[in-house]
Amino acid sequence: MTPRSRARNDALARPGRVVLDAMGGDHGPVETVPAAVAARRRFGVPVVLVGRSEEIGAELRRHGSSGEVEVVDARDAVPMTERGARAAARPESSVMVGCELAQGDGGAFVSAGSTGAVVTCAVRALGRREGVLRPALAVALPSLTGTTVLVDAGATADPTAEMVAQFALLGTAYARRVLGVADPSVGLLSLGAEPGKGNRLAREAGRLLPALPVRFHGNVEGHDVLAGTVDVVVTDGFTGNVVLKNIEGNVRTTLELVARAGIAKPARLREVARLYAAETHGGAALLGLSGTVVVAHGSSRAAAIARACRVACDLAADDTRASGDGAGG
Amino acid sequence: MTPRSRARNDALARPGRVVLDAMGGDHGPVETVPAAVAARRRFGVPVVLVGRSEEIGAELRRHGSSGEVEVVDARDAVPMTERGARAAARPESSVMVGCELAQGDGGAFVSAGSTGAVVTCAVRALGRREGVLRPALAVALPSLTGTTVLVDAGATADPTAEMVAQFALLGTAYARRVLGVADPSVGLLSLGAEPGKGNRLAREAGRLLPALPVRFHGNVEGHDVLAGTVDVVVTDGFTGNVVLKNIEGNVRTTLELVARAGIAKPARLREVARLYAAETHGGAALLGLSGTVVVAHGSSRAAAIARACRVACDLAADDTRASGDGAGG
Repeated sequence: MTPRSRARNDALARPGRVVLDAMGGDHGPVETVPAAVAARRRFGVPVVLVGRSEEIGAELRRHGSSGEVEVVDARDAVPMTERGARAAARPESSVMVGCELAQGDGGAFVSAGSTGAVVTCAVRALGRREGVLRPALAVALPSLTGTTVLVDAGATADPTAEMVAQFALLGTAYARRVLGVADPSVGLLSLGAEPGKGNRLAREAGRLLPALPVRFHGNVEGHDVLAGTVDVVVTDGFTGNVVLKNIEGNVRTTLELVARAGIAKPARLREVARLYAAETHGGAALLGLSGTVVVAHGSSRAAAIARACRVACDLAADDTRASGDGAGG
Repeated sequence: MTPRSRARNDALARPGRVVLDAMGGDHGPVETVPAAVAARRRFGVPVVLVGRSEEIGAELRRHGSSGEVEVVDARDAVPMTERGARAAARPESSVMVGCELAQGDGGAFVSAGSTGAVVTCAVRALGRREGVLRPALAVALPSLTGTTVLVDAGATADPTAEMVAQFALLGTAYARRVLGVADPSVGLLSLGAEPGKGNRLAREAGRLLPALPVRFHGNVEGHDVLAGTVDVVVTDGFTGNVVLKNIEGNVRTTLELVARAGIAKPARLREVARLYAAETHGGAALLGLSGTVVVAHGSSRAAAIARACRVACDLAADDTRASGDGAGG
């Protein structure tokens, strides 16, 4: 911890606090500032906004909320196009300053910014939990039978087989906490259900998983994700990210085709669309770190970011109660 | 070409002939035999059935079609669980015998069997076109704007970046022929739209693609596949297979959720479901070989397999007309 961040932390790190990257996402303060106000008013979540204080201040005034939300200045903003390594070299960015602020018990950080930048800064500022090789993003998706956790949804694009196997541990712990499933089943995403089918990475991970303390179901395929075949679907961060966005796109396309066919009214179809919208699931949790980090969709509007703040607050509170979980998410 | 297969070929290889693996798929002759009969009666496609002649004969009798479809005996059948290398060591399997029968101009092979076995046998019996590093499976999917070709949908699980880049050439030639698009746009599937985002493989392929004679759009993401952002979506065979099955599953799940919400009648929703059913798209084409090979879904029923035979027949005829395409699919 740098002296600067320690000073900030002493001032701000109270349990339940959520540090929000004001500059993150496609829309920046225009959406993050009302999100912070909404998180406070609607969900009772105290939010600290981090970013260019004059831009944040202007938005707060526009919403008649000056003084209602705490603001910490960070001069630099990481553009959405920025990738991990370079972002980490920007110590004054809202992402890095925000992660430093979230250090310590009960702290949580939320960003709709570049996933790569958030992962790099979070690992640097918060550190990995003992024994965790790489962090993983987990998303809870509505399935035909309940909810499925997809992990890794994009934190680690090139993991080793050991890392993928460990994502099963992280995902299992997350499913226990978030879904309340006592003994979640875990499937390894691959191109065939039979053991031994897959690319090199999946085949190697498939050999490691039976030895781990998870309820390993075996391989699952692309159609199993939303079918609810298992509670936790494990894959590398590249495939997981493609699948997550594929799901969002496929649901939209299917509903659009239904609407075009005149089978149902678009307004009614929005009920189903909402299930898979960022507004509903409130972002992805970055697992495996000594702290709570939630990554919201880059295109998120205020409602989605407010929900992400609430999810982060709940996770951090839960984390404080169940600390000492090891690789437990 | 072995003397045995040459003898068979002399007898059978006439343009327009489609060799069908009678033993392939989850249901074997129970579905492949009526498929052959239907392909002949409905689409005028002359089919040769390859597999255990007594099982095929029994099914033909059951359908009152004895003598209507040519049968070539192959004693061995590759189980659906079999992977590539071992299958190739089974020279008497219906897949290997079928591929050998499809050698020569105008020949085509169709199987609903294990993709791995079909790819291995097809490469061995038919050979790759000059300059082609690895074959790739192409599937034409209905999108919001027309049709998108996804390639590779599962032939090469661990390609190099050079292979992925070459899939763009194969996919472009296929889109020209099948979609009739003069200058198809190509997107590289990755986890961010910005250049340089991706896992190692995608980043490397992204560096090679601008130098190739394809209309390279840049990176696309999971939600772009059915949005119709580009005509051809290129990826490795692992990700492509997961995405293809993910699409099938997501469409089913979305329609099921619409039906459960009581927004539309299930019967009407089947119109949309049919768009993404194996019956409609008729299987995936294996590109890059000196011959036409179509892989149908393992769960295919007779109607889907019959359609795959028709697609194979059209592709082979087209291929004979436009021969000398090089890596042109």
